[in-house]
Amino acid sequence: MSVLIVGSTALDYIKTPHAENPKLLGGSASHAAVAASFFSPVKLVGVVGKDFPRKYISLYKRHKVDLTGLQIQEGKTFHWSGEYEVNMNHRRTLLTELGVFEKFTPHLPEAYKESPFVLLANIAPALQHHVLDQMKTPKFVVADTMDLWLNIAKNELVSLIKRVDGFVLNDSEAHQLTECDNVFAALRKIHKMGPKYVIIKKGSHGSILSSAAGYFICPAYPLHNVKDPTGAGDSFVGGMMGYLATARGGIDANIRRAMIYGSVTASFCCEGFGLKKTTTIKRAHIEQRVKELERLTRF
Amino acid sequence: MSVLIVGSTALDYIKTPHAENPKLLGGSASHAAVAASFFSPVKLVGVVGKDFPRKYISLYKRHKVDLTGLQIQEGKTFHWSGEYEVNMNHRRTLLTELGVFEKFTPHLPEAYKESPFVLLANIAPALQHHVLDQMKTPKFVVADTMDLWLNIAKNELVSLIKRVDGFVLNDSEAHQLTECDNVFAALRKIHKMGPKYVIIKKGSHGSILSSAAGYFICPAYPLHNVKDPTGAGDSFVGGMMGYLATARGGIDANIRRAMIYGSVTASFCCEGFGLKKTTTIKRAHIEQRVKELERLTRF
Repeated sequence: MSVLIVGSTALDYIKTPHAENPKLLGGSASHAAVAASFFSPVKLVGVVGKDFPRKYISLYKRHKVDLTGLQIQEGKTFHWSGEYEVNMNHRRTLLTELGVFEKFTPHLPEAYKESPFVLLANIAPALQHHVLDQMKTPKFVVADTMDLWLNIAKNELVSLIKRVDGFVLNDSEAHQLTECDNVFAALRKIHKMGPKYVIIKKGSHGSILSSAAGYFICPAYPLHNVKDPTGAGDSFVGGMMGYLATARGGIDANIRRAMIYGSVTASFCCEGFGLKKTTTIKRAHIEQRVKELERLTRF
Repeated sequence: MSVLIVGSTALDYIKTPHAENPKLLGGSASHAAVAASFFSPVKLVGVVGKDFPRKYISLYKRHKVDLTGLQIQEGKTFHWSGEYEVNMNHRRTLLTELGVFEKFTPHLPEAYKESPFVLLANIAPALQHHVLDQMKTPKFVVADTMDLWLNIAKNELVSLIKRVDGFVLNDSEAHQLTECDNVFAALRKIHKMGPKYVIIKKGSHGSILSSAAGYFICPAYPLHNVKDPTGAGDSFVGGMMGYLATARGGIDANIRRAMIYGSVTASFCCEGFGLKKTTTIKRAHIEQRVKELERLTRF
């Protein structure tokens, strides 16, 4: 089965203590779509400007991403520019230019509306709502978000959370949303807001799933050298949704392994700027790291 | 087999946003000894003053801790006073009064010198050296430490690290010692300093073991309510050493499960002030949480 992914498609400029890279393919939808593509067919919803490089269209096509829902409009592609500190855990935004995103309204092609798996990747909650409004009877809908929306669109975000099956956010966002310092207390509070599955991402410390079946403590793959963590969270949730879309059986039977596959896909994302490393790997590389994670956590 | 444990024995005053508790039994050796006592016989090495409450001597005795090596001297027991912030991850020391610790020299009783398992819990590296000098042919020696010794006794600590089989420290100490931001890079650097087994503790994010057999990602038991994390690291390493001392087979065959048992023992420590919760539990409570951790990490 296929995954519909809506989110941002951006040209990123990323600076770390070791290097800087302009005009990288970025955005939540790009990272999530490439990650999901290792496991299932992907339908992308988004917008880019006329300046969007042809090579990135080719990149999507190599990953067999359906671009019927990608609008190409007059104007500039969304641009994000950020800088990481030495330890790669803290970043600051240098510049955000919305470009064609400013007036973007996602219209789903007819064929998209039947997608059983829907990933509302990080983007304004109003747009996530708008996509969900157009879906017929999706089987499993997951939303991701970022601190920005908690700051400027909290009400829309809270009403979105009610509508989804799964909600994914990082630990500092969970703290901001719930005012709970304790991750498990925060998970409980977010469940009460609606979603049956809540996942809190903790960067290099892995992630935690909470559902009616209990918790799952999902490890991160050990990395000695993190080049650029931008998009790791999007890759995680993209890989997870891609895996779920093709796994046999229900969500509960597969979501733990799906998170492991997402975690491993995200590990490759961190090893290169933008999507540079992720676009060089094959499914076999992912399988190898999943096997390694099994060995690294067994006791 | 028994575990010899040297470290501090203290009367703690601990303040959190929710409560304050004076004259708690504290210190690295107290926490580690009680934790180890669930699994194996413990021989304690330390010093207290004449003010040390009888009830704490009884507490040790209930846990069958051998006190032949506990000196009771004229003067006051070591006192530490600290305060935790809301999220329980940051604490500051309000007061440290060394008392009888100032002139303490650990002399091992003859029967102690044959202990196969030795835990040099957090204490001045010079004292850890002095204990190790008196041991005959220990099977497995592990040292723990704290940032203070990195600040004021780094050379003694580095020479101690060379002499031990296992070295345990937390992530910020690992960063301070190696100047590596990345945990796995830090592990590699610490191996080069001598120990075959290096464990980095990451608080509520669990811990990582590095050895010739590879890494082990050890989870923390999920806690909804952390009352007082003081001594959690000591309980972790104490529980681990206690488990190893009675497990059949070599270190490599048992160290992963030993860490899990340490992690679970530490989870109880966090649920009460000082040793209040840990001293109410039985081995069966630990076994139950170990089983739960198995379920929480399976994929």
